Amino acid sequence: MEKFITQAILETYLKEFLEHTEVDVAICGAGPSGLLCGYYLAKNKVKVVVFERHLKIGGGMPGGGIMFNKIVFQKEVLPILDELGIDYNHYKDNLYVANSIETISALTYKAVKQGVKIFNLLSVEDVVIREKKICGVVLNWTAVEQAKLHVDPLAVLAKYVVDATGHDCEVAKIVEKKLGWVSVKGEQSMWAEVGEDKLIENTKEVCPGLIVCGMAANAFFGSPRMGAIFGGMFLSGKKAAEIIIARLAK
Amino acid sequence: MEKFITQAILETYLKEFLEHTEVDVAICGAGPSGLLCGYYLAKNKVKVVVFERHLKIGGGMPGGGIMFNKIVFQKEVLPILDELGIDYNHYKDNLYVANSIETISALTYKAVKQGVKIFNLLSVEDVVIREKKICGVVLNWTAVEQAKLHVDPLAVLAKYVVDATGHDCEVAKIVEKKLGWVSVKGEQSMWAEVGEDKLIENTKEVCPGLIVCGMAANAFFGSPRMGAIFGGMFLSGKKAAEIIIARLAK
Amino acid sequence: MEKFITQAILETYLKEFLEHTEVDVAICGAGPSGLLCGYYLAKNKVKVVVFERHLKIGGGMPGGGIMFNKIVFQKEVLPILDELGIDYNHYKDNLYVANSIETISALTYKAVKQGVKIFNLLSVEDVVIREKKICGVVLNWTAVEQAKLHVDPLAVLAKYVVDATGHDCEVAKIVEKKLGWVSVKGEQSMWAEVGEDKLIENTKEVCPGLIVCGMAANAFFGSPRMGAIFGGMFLSGKKAAEIIIARLAK
Amino acid sequence: MEKFITQAILETYLKEFLEHTEVDVAICGAGPSGLLCGYYLAKNKVKVVVFERHLKIGGGMPGGGIMFNKIVFQKEVLPILDELGIDYNHYKDNLYVANSIETISALTYKAVKQGVKIFNLLSVEDVVIREKKICGVVLNWTAVEQAKLHVDPLAVLAKYVVDATGHDCEVAKIVEKKLGWVSVKGEQSMWAEVGEDKLIENTKEVCPGLIVCGMAANAFFGSPRMGAIFGGMFLSGKKAAEIIIARLAK
Amino acid sequence: MEKFITQAILETYLKEFLEHTEVDVAICGAGPSGLLCGYYLAKNKVKVVVFERHLKIGGGMPGGGIMFNKIVFQKEVLPILDELGIDYNHYKDNLYVANSIETISALTYKAVKQGVKIFNLLSVEDVVIREKKICGVVLNWTAVEQAKLHVDPLAVLAKYVVDATGHDCEVAKIVEKKLGWVSVKGEQSMWAEVGEDKLIENTKEVCPGLIVCGMAANAFFGSPRMGAIFGGMFLSGKKAAEIIIARLAK
Amino acid sequence: MEKFITQAILETYLKEFLEHTEVDVAICGAGPSGLLCGYYLAKNKVKVVVFERHLKIGGGMPGGGIMFNKIVFQKEVLPILDELGIDYNHYKDNLYVANSIETISALTYKAVKQGVKIFNLLSVEDVVIREKKICGVVLNWTAVEQAKLHVDPLAVLAKYVVDATGHDCEVAKIVEKKLGWVSVKGEQSMWAEVGEDKLIENTKEVCPGLIVCGMAANAFFGSPRMGAIFGGMFLSGKKAAEIIIARLAK
Amino acid sequence: MEKFITQAILETYLKEFLEHTEVDVAICGAGPSGLLCGYYLAKNKVKVVVFERHLKIGGGMPGGGIMFNKIVFQKEVLPILDELGIDYNHYKDNLYVANSIETISALTYKAVKQGVKIFNLLSVEDVVIREKKICGVVLNWTAVEQAKLHVDPLAVLAKYVVDATGHDCEVAKIVEKKLGWVSVKGEQSMWAEVGEDKLIENTKEVCPGLIVCGMAANAFFGSPRMGAIFGGMFLSGKKAAEIIIARLAK
Amino acid sequence: MEKFITQAILETYLKEFLEHTEVDVAICGAGPSGLLCGYYLAKNKVKVVVFERHLKIGGGMPGGGIMFNKIVFQKEVLPILDELGIDYNHYKDNLYVANSIETISALTYKAVKQGVKIFNLLSVEDVVIREKKICGVVLNWTAVEQAKLHVDPLAVLAKYVVDATGHDCEVAKIVEKKLGWVSVKGEQSMWAEVGEDKLIENTKEVCPGLIVCGMAANAFFGSPRMGAIFGGMFLSGKKAAEIIIARLAK
Repeated sequence: MEKFITQAILETYLKEFLEHTEVDVAICGAGPSGLLCGYYLAKNKVKVVVFERHLKIGGGMPGGGIMFNKIVFQKEVLPILDELGIDYNHYKDNLYVANSIETISALTYKAVKQGVKIFNLLSVEDVVIREKKICGVVLNWTAVEQAKLHVDPLAVLAKYVVDATGHDCEVAKIVEKKLGWVSVKGEQSMWAEVGEDKLIENTKEVCPGLIVCGMAANAFFGSPRMGAIFGGMFLSGKKAAEIIIARLAK
Repeated sequence: MEKFITQAILETYLKEFLEHTEVDVAICGAGPSGLLCGYYLAKNKVKVVVFERHLKIGGGMPGGGIMFNKIVFQKEVLPILDELGIDYNHYKDNLYVANSIETISALTYKAVKQGVKIFNLLSVEDVVIREKKICGVVLNWTAVEQAKLHVDPLAVLAKYVVDATGHDCEVAKIVEKKLGWVSVKGEQSMWAEVGEDKLIENTKEVCPGLIVCGMAANAFFGSPRMGAIFGGMFLSGKKAAEIIIARLAK
Repeated sequence: MEKFITQAILETYLKEFLEHTEVDVAICGAGPSGLLCGYYLAKNKVKVVVFERHLKIGGGMPGGGIMFNKIVFQKEVLPILDELGIDYNHYKDNLYVANSIETISALTYKAVKQGVKIFNLLSVEDVVIREKKICGVVLNWTAVEQAKLHVDPLAVLAKYVVDATGHDCEVAKIVEKKLGWVSVKGEQSMWAEVGEDKLIENTKEVCPGLIVCGMAANAFFGSPRMGAIFGGMFLSGKKAAEIIIARLAK
Repeated sequence: MEKFITQAILETYLKEFLEHTEVDVAICGAGPSGLLCGYYLAKNKVKVVVFERHLKIGGGMPGGGIMFNKIVFQKEVLPILDELGIDYNHYKDNLYVANSIETISALTYKAVKQGVKIFNLLSVEDVVIREKKICGVVLNWTAVEQAKLHVDPLAVLAKYVVDATGHDCEVAKIVEKKLGWVSVKGEQSMWAEVGEDKLIENTKEVCPGLIVCGMAANAFFGSPRMGAIFGGMFLSGKKAAEIIIARLAK
Repeated sequence: MEKFITQAILETYLKEFLEHTEVDVAICGAGPSGLLCGYYLAKNKVKVVVFERHLKIGGGMPGGGIMFNKIVFQKEVLPILDELGIDYNHYKDNLYVANSIETISALTYKAVKQGVKIFNLLSVEDVVIREKKICGVVLNWTAVEQAKLHVDPLAVLAKYVVDATGHDCEVAKIVEKKLGWVSVKGEQSMWAEVGEDKLIENTKEVCPGLIVCGMAANAFFGSPRMGAIFGGMFLSGKKAAEIIIARLAK
Repeated sequence: MEKFITQAILETYLKEFLEHTEVDVAICGAGPSGLLCGYYLAKNKVKVVVFERHLKIGGGMPGGGIMFNKIVFQKEVLPILDELGIDYNHYKDNLYVANSIETISALTYKAVKQGVKIFNLLSVEDVVIREKKICGVVLNWTAVEQAKLHVDPLAVLAKYVVDATGHDCEVAKIVEKKLGWVSVKGEQSMWAEVGEDKLIENTKEVCPGLIVCGMAANAFFGSPRMGAIFGGMFLSGKKAAEIIIARLAK
Repeated sequence: MEKFITQAILETYLKEFLEHTEVDVAICGAGPSGLLCGYYLAKNKVKVVVFERHLKIGGGMPGGGIMFNKIVFQKEVLPILDELGIDYNHYKDNLYVANSIETISALTYKAVKQGVKIFNLLSVEDVVIREKKICGVVLNWTAVEQAKLHVDPLAVLAKYVVDATGHDCEVAKIVEKKLGWVSVKGEQSMWAEVGEDKLIENTKEVCPGLIVCGMAANAFFGSPRMGAIFGGMFLSGKKAAEIIIARLAK
Repeated sequence: MEKFITQAILETYLKEFLEHTEVDVAICGAGPSGLLCGYYLAKNKVKVVVFERHLKIGGGMPGGGIMFNKIVFQKEVLPILDELGIDYNHYKDNLYVANSIETISALTYKAVKQGVKIFNLLSVEDVVIREKKICGVVLNWTAVEQAKLHVDPLAVLAKYVVDATGHDCEVAKIVEKKLGWVSVKGEQSMWAEVGEDKLIENTKEVCPGLIVCGMAANAFFGSPRMGAIFGGMFLSGKKAAEIIIARLAK
């Protein structure tokens, strides 16, 4: 039986991977904004793949605030929570509390059911370019990087690449360092309301082929930080999907 | 707003934690068998809490086989997959392949919806005893252990403790080392069919108050190992729940 | 009994923490200047909280000079030592020697008795801002940082924030890096007399909402370093308290 | 001035150290039981020195329970808390809660005031023996051990040596490994009430010249563990002092 | 073009790997004895695969003696060197010196040309058993082990498994620890002549399905060590091949 | 016998090393371009030595693409593969796939047979200069660097130095940092076709005495990256040899 | 007896250290140039102390060239070798070879006999200044730095400070970073003859109170590197002594 | 010139090493007892070589007592100190204090002058055996071990091997583990007088071909430890030399 388990896993995975060496959208990072972006793209029949460097799915969400696994949402995000089947309780004013583990498992489950393909344990090392457009990502096993092995990467082509890696803005930093097409600014200190607004505003195509989302609170745009409130993240992921759907429709 | 986010998270978490300082069942480990056990217990109105040492939920499942995130199930487990809403494809004979990320997110989501409380980032350091019965677990933040800080733990009482920590059999090893009530045997080499059978057989109460599940393939019973096949894990988690329900009913 | 110990500690701590999510003054660093500042503020009925990143209270004081746990004070500080009940011996000229362990335990004990709330093991990750004023700190467990976990922080609001983190000037460096409101200069070489004078002179509000103290000998003002002489530290902590009391009185 | 600071610290420390190369009692470990033992010995005019391997004084006390800096005491310890000037609040039954930082700073301060000499940053590497009696400790800088330098230790003679190193029972382990005079048993699981009782019972002279205290909950006697409750620790430190005073009186 | 490079590598590798999930002989370790064993097996039309945990092929050979990349052979091995096209110079008596880099590259090249399939970067984690016979190996990426990721292994079936891992005797140690079928003895001190003889003598089937080779000088048989002389290694690899060919012929 | 093994290795190695303290060409890096360059130089009777910092020969080649040990070549490189006796299969268009382990072992073996001397485990720490020309390399054991020992290096003189260290461009970076004669640019993102062309174009003498090869895809010239395609590498190594042969002929 | 060993070591060391809290010259670094400088100063009745951060005396000398413990001298240094009683053999031209272990032990022994006081295991953390003159060093245990303890340093006053720390130019870098009085240039590549000349030329007072020696080949002056030839080092140490003797004579 | 420095060092070192691949006595460890043993052997015209694993010569001597670089000797050792030209001061009773740096440099210098060959940076990995006699050592670079490289060792033959590695008793432990000819006992606690006596008593041939010295205070014989007193070490080294001289004379 062991032989067939081995063959089943190798064949199934490779077939799926080979089918995704060329996609419509490659999303980097399986945190809240990346998964929501994938969910809405897949719902609109876009061929989408998510690459996550960690074994774990969910980005910063599972840890809640200082290891207390609860997270906060604003009222305007409730329809999305309802659509994904996530419970919440009203706390005060327009703030609602949800369980972070329920939230991330619901979001992952619904995204996969919509047709999002997620490959974890793969890190983005580089982007593929043609003239002045990003048109793919260059991947390697995260374990190769951590074990400090000298091993070459492989490439996956995509019409659009989404950087949803959060605080690290990994793809944007590669583009800044190697190509100089974008400029990554310093993260600002915490101002939750303003941070949430900036997050939506900053969801956009920052250079040809590269959309960023879920990055108000980070180093890319120099916007204020927000803490364990995730409404803006969800709206940003959704907006990124809408931008790409509009462009692909052209 | 920051102040209210802080208060919302602290208050909500603490209230939930305080409500769970005394429970019917404390499950250690949020991998496949621990979550399934929790799912069936909660479905039967048992007050159950799961403590997971990692930030990540899911144990060894998200990594699939050698980083290819697919896992294999046997035919007899399909009803459970159907109940949890997990997709699968037939591969050969009685083997079916599922996506490991979909599987773990579905299982987590459904368990939480049934009422299972999961607290991650907490490690079991010790058990609570009375005479000759395990009646609780002693917890500390995993981060405290990793940062090598000298900080004392706290205790949670439970009628039954489930060790679902897999290969590490953490709770059983504590009981072996400190109390000598159980004996942890060496893991045997891979023999998938036999391993799956042993896994069900070995799901039982190993000393008063301590049930183990999901451990055929590990060091506790000296049974054969199985690889990336998870049917037995699911059935073992279910059986552990059934054992406890029967005892609580007395 | 274990259950009640758990509940007693969780409830008591959380209640105290929730009462301090909004304070008059948040002091970062429980070394000599931070504790003295807190002592004089609390003595004047100001609601004050101290956050210390280490398990240990006392900053550089317990190590004395090159691990010989004695420290030196100047004559003008003797009234403070007398007020705190710290013994000392005359050495030569205006120099007096005290035991560093006695000094820090006396200072901590007296500060707590005056009503200073100290939360150790918490690190300042960021500040909270409104327009052009610092109005709080963003905290996370030090253990989270050391264990390299991806966990979001929480915020505490304060009318004034005091950076008493010494050589590291942690808060000032965050403000410099993220907001650019202050400029941290290089530490200068040792010149004990001048260092002591500078230390008092440099105790001030460096940008709206942020007071620094205990920093003559460090990277913030480019002043000379002093060694194991602590008179200036004490006077600086006291002066910081006086500045804040004056402003709060307005 | 720098030269005189240097001389003041070197001369004062060395004079004190030389005066303590031969003492009545050498206590290893400046945690709660070691400090209380020292406090009561010094109160009875016994020449006593405490060696602590860390920079920090206080053992496991400052961390409270899972980083929440509160600790619990039983009713019978309140007279000691009152004598030391430590505040507490009633929680339930015979349980009282105190602030861990206040407790340890009060205890340290009062011990020093009674005449206890504390040298921190020094580790016990070995004991001094004569025939069949422990009559001193062999010390080295903790930093030497941590920096893995090849540097020889020095010895301090004492009529009695107290092992108050808690869970590590460092001195007892040296005696077990090198001389075989004692036998260190495995720590048992948590049972708070029994642990507290055992702690007092187990405070005794375990071989000629070596008294242990504060060790019910640890590896030495195989007694149950207790968690963040410190009443027994205090009573054990006091009892150790009483045993020694009685013997010295002979 | 990037897409086709990716597909070419994935498809070609996986096809080859799937063709080798069931083989005649699985050799663990691509050092001198493992490669020679593979070379002679492939020359006899046996389907053989070599798994090597390192990126590097060649075991201890490339380092020569104390980093001087020369190795020594005895006269009786010269025919093998001639067959592989490796140059050598006479040194004294029956000792000949060759370049270690030339030797290992020639041996690898000739083995591959004979049809040996080598997969590097894969570690043996376990063996597959049926009743009382070893019938395969359980593999994982070495990088997974080094990056300490929780990822399950996969299995490859084989009629015979060869442990050619040298000093580490990795497969034999797994069999000893998990199944108790063999016993690994302590390595003995250097005695070069005797070591060379023992090496040939000790090449044999140590339990059903497991042949060891290249192990005279190591922990498995308690034989003397040899140093940078490799004649016995070559003869041992050849003998292991002959044993297997004889058994497969039955 | 041990004594003669020791003497054989020491004498043979040292004799060879002393004969190569002054050479025509010193190549740094035993990856594909360095070895090919050495092969063609030796074929033309040039006295050439290769220094490799690792134990392993072959640079990035043995790891293939993301640990799948296959590599891709373009049609125009087939004559070189044929000359070296390396097998390949046609994949698509002008792309051919070869086994990476066969490729590197064939290349190493043929280079050594042509007379290339390879010393592994030696790192280049510095270059030797005379006025405005590079005329040698300064070497130390890689193990000295890794063990952080304070040990001085030694020098080897050469008419030309080749930097074939790939992504690290180690020699060029030393020359940039210490002498300022060259400028190392940032690596650009992946564009395989362009990268291959640039690689040949960029093979040249970058300052008097220093030739670089195999560096299109790296930090030195700011050219696009290529992935696991190695045709350009081979052609670059060959071109570097041709440049040097031409200059030495003058 | 242990007590008297302890007292003998503490008293003798402290007395010597206290006598050297104010000296004529403080030399940082006990390598060849520092020791020779000290030797000639002491021979001229100057009160001189050497601080060495390592346990080991001798700097880079004991390692010889790539771990072969021989070093090379030029003919003009032979009188110094003769004065110190160091053996040497002629190799070629004006080059002589000596044993590195003999050399450093002879030099250390003769320096101590002349009256040089050496304190090892102490690191220079800072300098003492008065207006625009260096007038002492600030010291801490190296072990404190390595164990990352928070412990304050102490100061020693000196009329002149010598930086003989070699490649690291530790004191000069502190002066550059904190005071900006000097500028440390990049080390140049190897050119042995020129390096030796520069080394003597560069021995001078670089800012008021700070003399550097043994630094031609390092980062301070941007001079060429030399390798395992030590003649210039010896001459530089001697010249530094002569400069200081001349100034003290004024 | 660089080329000749390289050649001078390589040639001189190798010649000396080759001359010492067969010696009368191989001493492992260049601490006080090993060097003294070598000194007296060389004085008697015995061909002797010392292998030291560290860069540093001197063992535990340079660190003095707890980093205070003074050491203590008894009256009976004064003739040896006089012979070696080491200064000392009387402290009390029969105790004398010397400077540890002067002592070790004098001892090294005099040993080398007597003809002792010292090779540092080489570790003993194994011994060479013939039937039931130790007749040599197996060496590797210490840096190879520290860099965890897979590199084979080389052998040196000797009529007698001396284990002077002190607390580590490295050679004896190899013989115990691999051959079982000796048994290493646990170190006992400090008793300085007894320790000194045992040290002399325990200097002997512990199995054919292996003499140990300087080991009373360590794990080999289970004798008491001594601290920073070195008289016994000196006498033990001398006695080991006398034993060997007597045997060689037979």
